Amino acid sequence: MSELVTPRQLEPLGFAVPSTVPTHWYNLAADLPEPVPPHLHPGTREPLTPDDLAPLFPMSLIAQEVSTERWIEIPQTIREIYAGWRPSPLVRAHRLERALGTKAHVYYKYEGVSPAGSHKPNSAVAQAYFNAAEGITRLTTETGAGQWGASLSMACALLGLECEVWQVRASYDSKPYRRMQMETYGGTCHSSPSDLTKAGRELLEKYPETTGSLGMAISEAVESAVEDPNAHYALGSVLNHVMLHQTVIGQEALVQLEEANERQADIVFGCAGGGSNLAGLSFPFIGRNLREGSTTQVVACEPAACPSLTQGEYRYDFGDVAGMTPLLKMYTLGRDFVPPAIHAGGLRYHGMSPMVSHAVNLGHISAIAVDQDTAFTAGIEFARAEGIIPAPESCHAVAGAMDYLRTSAEDGEVVVIGLSGNGVLDLAAYEQYV
Amino acid sequence: MSELVTPRQLEPLGFAVPSTVPTHWYNLAADLPEPVPPHLHPGTREPLTPDDLAPLFPMSLIAQEVSTERWIEIPQTIREIYAGWRPSPLVRAHRLERALGTKAHVYYKYEGVSPAGSHKPNSAVAQAYFNAAEGITRLTTETGAGQWGASLSMACALLGLECEVWQVRASYDSKPYRRMQMETYGGTCHSSPSDLTKAGRELLEKYPETTGSLGMAISEAVESAVEDPNAHYALGSVLNHVMLHQTVIGQEALVQLEEANERQADIVFGCAGGGSNLAGLSFPFIGRNLREGSTTQVVACEPAACPSLTQGEYRYDFGDVAGMTPLLKMYTLGRDFVPPAIHAGGLRYHGMSPMVSHAVNLGHISAIAVDQDTAFTAGIEFARAEGIIPAPESCHAVAGAMDYLRTSAEDGEVVVIGLSGNGVLDLAAYEQYV
Repeated sequence: MSELVTPRQLEPLGFAVPSTVPTHWYNLAADLPEPVPPHLHPGTREPLTPDDLAPLFPMSLIAQEVSTERWIEIPQTIREIYAGWRPSPLVRAHRLERALGTKAHVYYKYEGVSPAGSHKPNSAVAQAYFNAAEGITRLTTETGAGQWGASLSMACALLGLECEVWQVRASYDSKPYRRMQMETYGGTCHSSPSDLTKAGRELLEKYPETTGSLGMAISEAVESAVEDPNAHYALGSVLNHVMLHQTVIGQEALVQLEEANERQADIVFGCAGGGSNLAGLSFPFIGRNLREGSTTQVVACEPAACPSLTQGEYRYDFGDVAGMTPLLKMYTLGRDFVPPAIHAGGLRYHGMSPMVSHAVNLGHISAIAVDQDTAFTAGIEFARAEGIIPAPESCHAVAGAMDYLRTSAEDGEVVVIGLSGNGVLDLAAYEQYV
Repeated sequence: MSELVTPRQLEPLGFAVPSTVPTHWYNLAADLPEPVPPHLHPGTREPLTPDDLAPLFPMSLIAQEVSTERWIEIPQTIREIYAGWRPSPLVRAHRLERALGTKAHVYYKYEGVSPAGSHKPNSAVAQAYFNAAEGITRLTTETGAGQWGASLSMACALLGLECEVWQVRASYDSKPYRRMQMETYGGTCHSSPSDLTKAGRELLEKYPETTGSLGMAISEAVESAVEDPNAHYALGSVLNHVMLHQTVIGQEALVQLEEANERQADIVFGCAGGGSNLAGLSFPFIGRNLREGSTTQVVACEPAACPSLTQGEYRYDFGDVAGMTPLLKMYTLGRDFVPPAIHAGGLRYHGMSPMVSHAVNLGHISAIAVDQDTAFTAGIEFARAEGIIPAPESCHAVAGAMDYLRTSAEDGEVVVIGLSGNGVLDLAAYEQYV
């Protein structure tokens, strides 16, 4: 009934993809005045070599991880899949403007139109493609709110891979629909920590009542991939190649603003957990600032309950709890930090993308923390003005922008909100605020 | 925190809506060779007068209900709201074609990108607008799967109305997220039959264990509206003006097929419960057949468990269970028919749109019945090929098209599937088939 497609289907179908779908990913590393600090081997503390990463990732993604090329071509097969929902809409928030009484021009870049309901498929499709192209047959991953796990399951179905997902227990228990979404795509989903891995068993023994965390789930997914020669691991955020794949968002927004006769964005608000939506939307704007002297401000909106950028230290730390990943230079709350079970599961991460961290450290991105009540209040207001119920993650960006619009925005100023996804599978969280 | 917008916001914002958003609704009644049989007064059995309908609907919608004008202009305020997600995508199902090994050209017209996840906002926004314009402050309605209730709640939030929804008990119990969606938009949702209405109390007494039905919920919503001079009733399907509003779907598809260099659609598959998605997609094609001699076939795909078109009689019947509505000439299983609690709650209706029924009776639409297993199997196959998880209702159209593609389609034939919505809030139903 539902056989997976075979790897030969990596070949492009050959139809003409509209020119509005980006042809390249944009790499901010090419334009930053200082190189992105390299990831370090946890044993030697020397910069990682490609061989160090080979058990986890295909060579093509490892090359992207350390690339300093400005433009990296998107394979035709990936563009064909992107064309199913890209370019995503950039919508003028006319009714929100009226509700707020602002004379600023407010836009939202809406990724919720993707089949999985968020921006995550932009990287999931790319990662599944490059893994399948190198003969891998199975991908493992972690997921917080479930957006990434659902997206990778979808991408694996389209490209002929098995997919196994460890979902943070707090989300697994409270959001059963996400697991069902993964299973409908043919993926497998476990509650993390699980008894399927050594890392999981140790965590369960130590913290039997834990709500789980992204750091724990990463440990499990990495362990499972390393033990299977036909498997690799896929990460939904944090790493440089993920930021790269997401830049289709910002590239489209630049073009769409021009089409709307706006000279540029004055300020961009994005939510920040691991950093992929923020990076995807903002890096093309920051690159233009650096290359052409434009002056778009970028604001990262993170949850007050997990404030890596506003309260963390900028230093090398592990990406996971068990200390199995490379050391990453990033803003971190410490790998042992277990964030409270806030509803924006996708933002419950102790660290932050090294590229985003580097850009923050160099002053190209500023950061604010938004508490959960403020985020949901803003989300409900947005829903009743614009019709779209934002994902809890996106609510942080909406809240940051709405506060700015109420207190600081000038007439005619162009404000762009990154709406990373819709919140239809997060309605139980809204329920508590209605 | 979340005040509703005020009625003065019915005024258009005045921005330039893209020309790709239709400017008029299309009325098939203008092109059919025989007039659509009028609705009858249940007492006199005479054709209804506008005054008969005035307790339930605003005069502008009553005029649309009986209009024989071919084109009815869409007010600017409604076009501005439509522009948030319209035109909806017409996507070539390249990977599904490959999976099926067909040389037909398969397209799906995808309404799941709307904020509420289905085609229902096309009429919800229109109905909320015309009611608000005539001073109504509260709308009542019924909902099956919850798509319509969520859409009307959204439309009421955007246009400044209260919204009260009676949801069929089977859906209310199995799909709590839909209720939460309505409440996030500020709507109120009751399980039907409820003890809030006389009709509901009588049904509860007679059938305490009932799973409910659209017919029962309609009785309750109508009763509640009639008793409140500031309230009107809104119906999500069946009536002529609803079919009218949905024709933006098919109008866009005609243009999009031309843009894709297809001369026409050879065959269109739509799901049919009350008929609004099928009518919206197919009526502009049928109109072109009638006016220009094109030969697009239209196939209504209804659930085998509730087969009004394939097993019902074409006669006058009530639209609800209690016999409170006008008599409608339609294919009906009888108003007492209580369909089994199938997952496609939006298709659980004993009757069928009089306009769709008339078009079927005149031979412009053919009908097939699809059983639930076949529908979900097709939906899962579609999801794993195209990424989108179709709504259970839409699965019936997908199944009808896939059977045709496997058995009858010729090379180069153009097949269009009406994908009325996405199934993310219906994943619990998929769960049983995975």
